[in-house]
Amino acid sequence: MQNPANARCRPAPPELLQCLSDRFQERCRTGASERERHGRDESPYDTTPPDCVVYPTTSEEVAEAVRLCAAYRVPIIAFGAGTSIEGHIMPIEGGVTLDLSLMNHLIAVNAEDLTATVEAGVTRKQLNAAIEDTGLFFPVDPGADATLGGMAATRASGSNAVRYGTMRENVLGLKVVTADGEIVHTARRAKKSSAGYDLTRIFVGSEGTLGIITEVTVRLFPQPEAVSAAVCPFGDVAGAVNTVIRTIQRGVPVARAELLDALSITAVNRYSKTTLKEQPTLFLEFHGTPASVNEQAETVQSIAREHGGHDFEWAVDSEARMRLWDARHSAFLACLQLRPGARAFVTDACVPISRLAECIMATIEDTHTSTLPCPILGHVGDGNFHCIIIVDPANPAEIEEAERLNQRVMRRALAMDGTCTGEHGVGMHKIALLHEEFGEHGVDLMRRLKQAWDPLNILNPGKVVSLV
Amino acid sequence: MQNPANARCRPAPPELLQCLSDRFQERCRTGASERERHGRDESPYDTTPPDCVVYPTTSEEVAEAVRLCAAYRVPIIAFGAGTSIEGHIMPIEGGVTLDLSLMNHLIAVNAEDLTATVEAGVTRKQLNAAIEDTGLFFPVDPGADATLGGMAATRASGSNAVRYGTMRENVLGLKVVTADGEIVHTARRAKKSSAGYDLTRIFVGSEGTLGIITEVTVRLFPQPEAVSAAVCPFGDVAGAVNTVIRTIQRGVPVARAELLDALSITAVNRYSKTTLKEQPTLFLEFHGTPASVNEQAETVQSIAREHGGHDFEWAVDSEARMRLWDARHSAFLACLQLRPGARAFVTDACVPISRLAECIMATIEDTHTSTLPCPILGHVGDGNFHCIIIVDPANPAEIEEAERLNQRVMRRALAMDGTCTGEHGVGMHKIALLHEEFGEHGVDLMRRLKQAWDPLNILNPGKVVSLV
Repeated sequence: MQNPANARCRPAPPELLQCLSDRFQERCRTGASERERHGRDESPYDTTPPDCVVYPTTSEEVAEAVRLCAAYRVPIIAFGAGTSIEGHIMPIEGGVTLDLSLMNHLIAVNAEDLTATVEAGVTRKQLNAAIEDTGLFFPVDPGADATLGGMAATRASGSNAVRYGTMRENVLGLKVVTADGEIVHTARRAKKSSAGYDLTRIFVGSEGTLGIITEVTVRLFPQPEAVSAAVCPFGDVAGAVNTVIRTIQRGVPVARAELLDALSITAVNRYSKTTLKEQPTLFLEFHGTPASVNEQAETVQSIAREHGGHDFEWAVDSEARMRLWDARHSAFLACLQLRPGARAFVTDACVPISRLAECIMATIEDTHTSTLPCPILGHVGDGNFHCIIIVDPANPAEIEEAERLNQRVMRRALAMDGTCTGEHGVGMHKIALLHEEFGEHGVDLMRRLKQAWDPLNILNPGKVVSLV
Repeated sequence: MQNPANARCRPAPPELLQCLSDRFQERCRTGASERERHGRDESPYDTTPPDCVVYPTTSEEVAEAVRLCAAYRVPIIAFGAGTSIEGHIMPIEGGVTLDLSLMNHLIAVNAEDLTATVEAGVTRKQLNAAIEDTGLFFPVDPGADATLGGMAATRASGSNAVRYGTMRENVLGLKVVTADGEIVHTARRAKKSSAGYDLTRIFVGSEGTLGIITEVTVRLFPQPEAVSAAVCPFGDVAGAVNTVIRTIQRGVPVARAELLDALSITAVNRYSKTTLKEQPTLFLEFHGTPASVNEQAETVQSIAREHGGHDFEWAVDSEARMRLWDARHSAFLACLQLRPGARAFVTDACVPISRLAECIMATIEDTHTSTLPCPILGHVGDGNFHCIIIVDPANPAEIEEAERLNQRVMRRALAMDGTCTGEHGVGMHKIALLHEEFGEHGVDLMRRLKQAWDPLNILNPGKVVSLV
């Protein structure tokens, strides 16, 4: 699938490549496979390689690379794990990719304060493995083993945001390299602050267009004393969705509440060799003291029964829970396997929960009129769901059909006072939709911020806001 | 006390006053008492009246007033309840105050979505009274009955932020009038979004310097099934603080955890006719199901015993609880009454909780060397505490001494990786400190944002960032 911008209008000139090579030596690479690998993410866009890839090891090196690119007015794009799904990391105007994977060190774990500071290339699984002994954990879990820098840049969330919040709530502070090549700390480690404009929240979700995140300080949480998880099939999607809505409205602090529709369950059964009933199904998890977990589970079971969900299957021990969530986490890959060689358009509507059942039901109606397989997964406690539209990327008619469905879902979400993207971000794909979501004056504020902080437009150009 | 800027360098010219008077009629006022009332807040600064006060009734009227002021390059300052304590609302360069008190209507309560949308002049008590029947409540509680617009603009928090978060977490979206006089919605009502730069969080805490907030959409929470509250005196401040720190680290979702030192308790007993033991005391509140409230209370009692807190006095029925929290809420006024006619410098340090006991103890040491009474109150679960430095505002030596103490507290917080202001904001008073907290490059980002969004510097000039 073609990407929407005119590609490679600002390639890195040979002089810049020579400077970078002299400075970074074997950590500056221009080989074809290296460039290819950094020219794609999980989106269906055609691979768009950078002119070279630099692997910095410190914030100072990031700053040096930025200053060199600024001197030549050449784009510079931060790259984490490459798991974004809106083309965020594609150097569509050409330029230099900064791969932050060597910046993968834990800087500090302040267990007493429930905080950790890591380099931007640390992944969420790496962080959680490293802090396991402290009795704490980092909750944000987008499924993929993304880097903390990438997760912050995308304002990521995932399955337990319903209880613990998204990266918006869980980033305490950042170290960032600005477009001038200066290093800025956006906040101290205090839990709250009213000191000036919220620099941290400006960079969280800015997708590498306002600065390059090199360190992330996050909130940690005490590992819950007790955890239990369950799956429960429902007669229809509405029953499952309404169970979660009612649970949230009752104030039950459910830790995860995930919906998979029947087609997703079919895909998961095939891929993960599970034997789940091929019906709309909730995956639930409860965290707390043993007494509170029991109380939550009882409340939710009774709500589920009122909505046609009778057969709770419990996974109390950690191995059974891991199998269950592994199956859920591999649902995206499982769905892709419904058509080997296919790619996916993933919608990301998020609406007020009172409109969620209606939004999902209307979307299912849509998919019934389409020839493309469209399994649905949802972080329903947040009002967020994904329609995984499976396409042959070489077939323009399918791409067009997928885009038609995607546009309908996004506009439906906007009409319901929701957002076109709950957690995946804008990338190249939703720039036009922001005009509908925020109006021209809202987008104009974003554009003026971008111009004020990156006047040469070198930081990941062509993403989030269009300057033309 | 003199305010720090050169006052009245941009007064409203007669032509502008005439335009405003023609347009707003009896809602444009220039009488002395009206102007005086809008020239002061709870800070110790000298009253600094605006040139006139306009009472808009709609966002469109706010936009009109902004466009008129922009045409004359005259400052325009939003005014809510006037309860800020850093001189936020003082028109130090002259100009027009917009009093938003007529914009005090509830626009929508979406109980199913746990959200409410109100005009900016609605106060938190007004909102809670209006939604009581829905079974929901709005938790953010800075003590004063501030307006939601003012609370958003100051990034306010207060006593139950430890469980429910601050305005940063609880504002879902805003309607804002920009410096161009355009009306912008910063977000839809979805619980989360990755759609572009976080406009909402940029305006939250911007103190009227980036736009004028005219509507606020906030998160609501189910009223807890059970609530219980308690006071517990301790032998020393450290025991009380460490009890709370340990509670947080254990993951107990305590709803409020407030410290009052012995002098604050003396002041409260005098003012509220209570008979609390005049020792460092924790005020605690627990929310949840009856079983979970009991469990939390037992855990905290056992932690308190380990730190010398033995005598829990419980307030379970709502009347006893209200008496208790009324006493806590009036603590600021009670402290002022320690010296009738006095004003207060209120420090607002917030540090990582592992440093909190040390920070408070060192601050108490400081106050022992001072002649001024300095009771201490703290939202200790957030690492935030206030030293209420009581001064005679007409006595320059006392002001100087108060400022010396305040500067020491702020610098101590910064040295402990904390912030100079946890919840009160920058106003005029902490502009210089931001340079220490964020460095020159961090402040430069703030300055460039201000210049990009308010190039004429008409929105509450002289606050948050200095442009010179």
